Amino acid sequence: MRTHLIVAAIVLTVATAAAQTAPPPVVAPIPAAVQANVDRLQTAALGSDLAYDIVEGLTTEIGPRLAGSDAEAKAREWAVAMLRRNGFQNVRIEPFSIPYWERKVERATVITTHGRQNLVVVALGGSPAADVDAEIVRFASLAVLNDASPESVRGKIVFIDEPTNRTQDGTGYGAGVAKRGQCGMVAAAKGAAACIIRSVGTHSHRFAHQGGSTHPRTAPTAPSAAVSPPDADQLTRLLARGPVRVKLEIGVETRASAPSGNVIGEVVGRERPDEIIVIGGHLDSWDQGTGAIDDGAGVAITTAAAKLIRDLPRRPRRTIRVVLFGAEETGIHGGIAYARQHAGVMGKHVVAAESDFGAREVYRMRSRFGEGAVPYARAMQRALSPLRIIAGDNLAGGGPDLGPMRMVGVPMVELSQNGWDYFDYHHTPDDTLDKIDRAELRQNVAAYATFAYLSAEMDWDFRKPAETAAPAAR
Amino acid sequence: MRTHLIVAAIVLTVATAAAQTAPPPVVAPIPAAVQANVDRLQTAALGSDLAYDIVEGLTTEIGPRLAGSDAEAKAREWAVAMLRRNGFQNVRIEPFSIPYWERKVERATVITTHGRQNLVVVALGGSPAADVDAEIVRFASLAVLNDASPESVRGKIVFIDEPTNRTQDGTGYGAGVAKRGQCGMVAAAKGAAACIIRSVGTHSHRFAHQGGSTHPRTAPTAPSAAVSPPDADQLTRLLARGPVRVKLEIGVETRASAPSGNVIGEVVGRERPDEIIVIGGHLDSWDQGTGAIDDGAGVAITTAAAKLIRDLPRRPRRTIRVVLFGAEETGIHGGIAYARQHAGVMGKHVVAAESDFGAREVYRMRSRFGEGAVPYARAMQRALSPLRIIAGDNLAGGGPDLGPMRMVGVPMVELSQNGWDYFDYHHTPDDTLDKIDRAELRQNVAAYATFAYLSAEMDWDFRKPAETAAPAAR
Repeated sequence: MRTHLIVAAIVLTVATAAAQTAPPPVVAPIPAAVQANVDRLQTAALGSDLAYDIVEGLTTEIGPRLAGSDAEAKAREWAVAMLRRNGFQNVRIEPFSIPYWERKVERATVITTHGRQNLVVVALGGSPAADVDAEIVRFASLAVLNDASPESVRGKIVFIDEPTNRTQDGTGYGAGVAKRGQCGMVAAAKGAAACIIRSVGTHSHRFAHQGGSTHPRTAPTAPSAAVSPPDADQLTRLLARGPVRVKLEIGVETRASAPSGNVIGEVVGRERPDEIIVIGGHLDSWDQGTGAIDDGAGVAITTAAAKLIRDLPRRPRRTIRVVLFGAEETGIHGGIAYARQHAGVMGKHVVAAESDFGAREVYRMRSRFGEGAVPYARAMQRALSPLRIIAGDNLAGGGPDLGPMRMVGVPMVELSQNGWDYFDYHHTPDDTLDKIDRAELRQNVAAYATFAYLSAEMDWDFRKPAETAAPAAR
Repeated sequence: MRTHLIVAAIVLTVATAAAQTAPPPVVAPIPAAVQANVDRLQTAALGSDLAYDIVEGLTTEIGPRLAGSDAEAKAREWAVAMLRRNGFQNVRIEPFSIPYWERKVERATVITTHGRQNLVVVALGGSPAADVDAEIVRFASLAVLNDASPESVRGKIVFIDEPTNRTQDGTGYGAGVAKRGQCGMVAAAKGAAACIIRSVGTHSHRFAHQGGSTHPRTAPTAPSAAVSPPDADQLTRLLARGPVRVKLEIGVETRASAPSGNVIGEVVGRERPDEIIVIGGHLDSWDQGTGAIDDGAGVAITTAAAKLIRDLPRRPRRTIRVVLFGAEETGIHGGIAYARQHAGVMGKHVVAAESDFGAREVYRMRSRFGEGAVPYARAMQRALSPLRIIAGDNLAGGGPDLGPMRMVGVPMVELSQNGWDYFDYHHTPDDTLDKIDRAELRQNVAAYATFAYLSAEMDWDFRKPAETAAPAAR
């Protein structure tokens, strides 16, 4: 114990000395007048319920907004009216088409020697219809199923009981979601009749977690559904007693083509209107809940942030474009359509950030800039620090709809939200307005307003490569 | 501030003096050999998962156990086998008949100018079938509806949005549940087409809370259903925007008579086998969840407690009778049947306690004894204090199935459980095994074993009136 203390003291001394001698990070300067506007925006955001009112309106008046559905179309009309009411310019819908899939019915019943029990299930996005009555075979993870012999699962229902780890940054979801995407294909490849997965999610409530899964038309695929975590536990306990039969029924409606679209509104730049800052969220939702945290919140946060910037005495130099993407949940269709429709002007897209991780506080800002532009990230991080946001790395992913833009080199910012309880609600019937805290939503608006305003007002090139970086004042 | 401190100091001095001079409460003595068995029982209970295994078995193998259903019959068979396996004597079913009601389907859809939204609802116990499409009228409470004119609700669906307060002892439920029992009658009396209530419950999840409601055959009654709390909020928000129409469909199955029964097992007394200590819970459950906390836990706690007493080197003087009541949820049918079937020997029922308030720790022991028997309650409370159980008053209600026995003068004990989160799960799909904590269940078993053993071993008359009370040694 004593030895450890001495070592710790030495390490601490060395670390302190290193910190004292290391050069401070280079931070781009922000003029006082611009900083004054940042302060004004933050104060306004922290005192405004505009974002809450937007997500309240969307989730109340429209409710669930399945990609390609009539409800999603109503949500676009709603969003156009809302953007116009808030004084946005160039408000428009950029339409595109998507393949349509809707769950119409799903039922799962356990059949034991004592009788029948209903399970809480939801058909996974893209699943074919099913009417299967077969024994289930449990696998602790997708990896274990991958190793299983076809003989052991042929004609049966594979059951992947892999849990989801609770993490602040969503990495637990990333690890746990593979089974959702792949179970239908893997099951079919091994000759299984269907696939049931333990819901991707961190709660222990009787909610089954919806989400997309891969069901290619060109390869065999099996019907797939998720069971709630308590039902997954029930299956495991029943299997400990002997063979378990499940009757799984799934009814779906599919159409080759259905309408979707991105809704756009702008605060047009006063000097360089063709240079674009993109912020936004996605307008569609899965259909069990009302899509409050996924992603009414993102729609509301980014719209409210842009509206506050619009309300400044003068508009910033560049254009802030709010993009409310359509059909994210069923395949990032809106993000792909946007990148395609604006392919010719991607070089004019200065930077982009999507809010699509709930409604909790932002705790960190990450960037994905050219190495020479890191001082601009530092400047933003310094401006965000009064909001209790820490500096992150330069490896931001950006939101799901920004993937296609990121791949062609558009700089990204990620305002990382605390996702500790996001997967308690995400994609379940429980994604409703009551899960949103007004104060946390305000902090998000303040963060987006700060980032978007600085990006639009300052003469910063976020693509700046390392070799051209000029020394920046501290 | 200073004045307050002086006053506080004086009050404290007086209070301390009073405490020093007040006579100590009279506590009946417990012989060392008996206390040794109490210690042995508590140690055994705190180290045993028997109760957990019982509730695990019941909720896994049988699952939901609606009163009068095939599943409840299977649960009786299961309980008989379980009691025999655990060495109980005189294991038997005491059958009775009940009117049968089962919800087959329920759907509620809000119809707005923007489209339709599904609500999470459950038909209330006893509700007639419905196919209603009407405007809803909101009332903040049952009291406000009671004051409403028939003209204001005629042909409409009344919506009672009264919340449930979170309390440790369940009094919030008592206050909130009146609307569930009465809404169908009140609605019908005023000419309304149906009644929708905000779920009785303290959570904010998309679960609708099931429960009995009064639908007399001799008076007009309206179909009634509960909506989940987030859906109730949604209705209120929609109503703030204008009129709201709801389509409510309820399908039910009813039969005049269905079989139910109480399952009984005994640890027969070694000296006075005809003197009975009753402990138990109820075997039936509502059908959305698996009835883990309501009331698999009560079945498990009391059975495990009696089994531990049975395992002592010798059985206590009096008989401990475990009664697993049938059909509690739909009208306390099991408790009524028991009191009727044993009416001739109620005088031989020494004391009774039912565990039907979840699976959280016991924090208090209350009694309902003759005034002369209060020293016995004090003795029990002292014996329970190592389990962190405090002394309560002499106004115990006893559990719901004990009401008929209480009314004919059988002494009662209440081992009050912490009900802080009970109404987060109670009567919803979320009443499942994962909500039970093994350690808390063990503490319950220790408490019931202590109470039941002392009641069966000691020569205590809990009916003892005040005037005959002999001075008890401290």
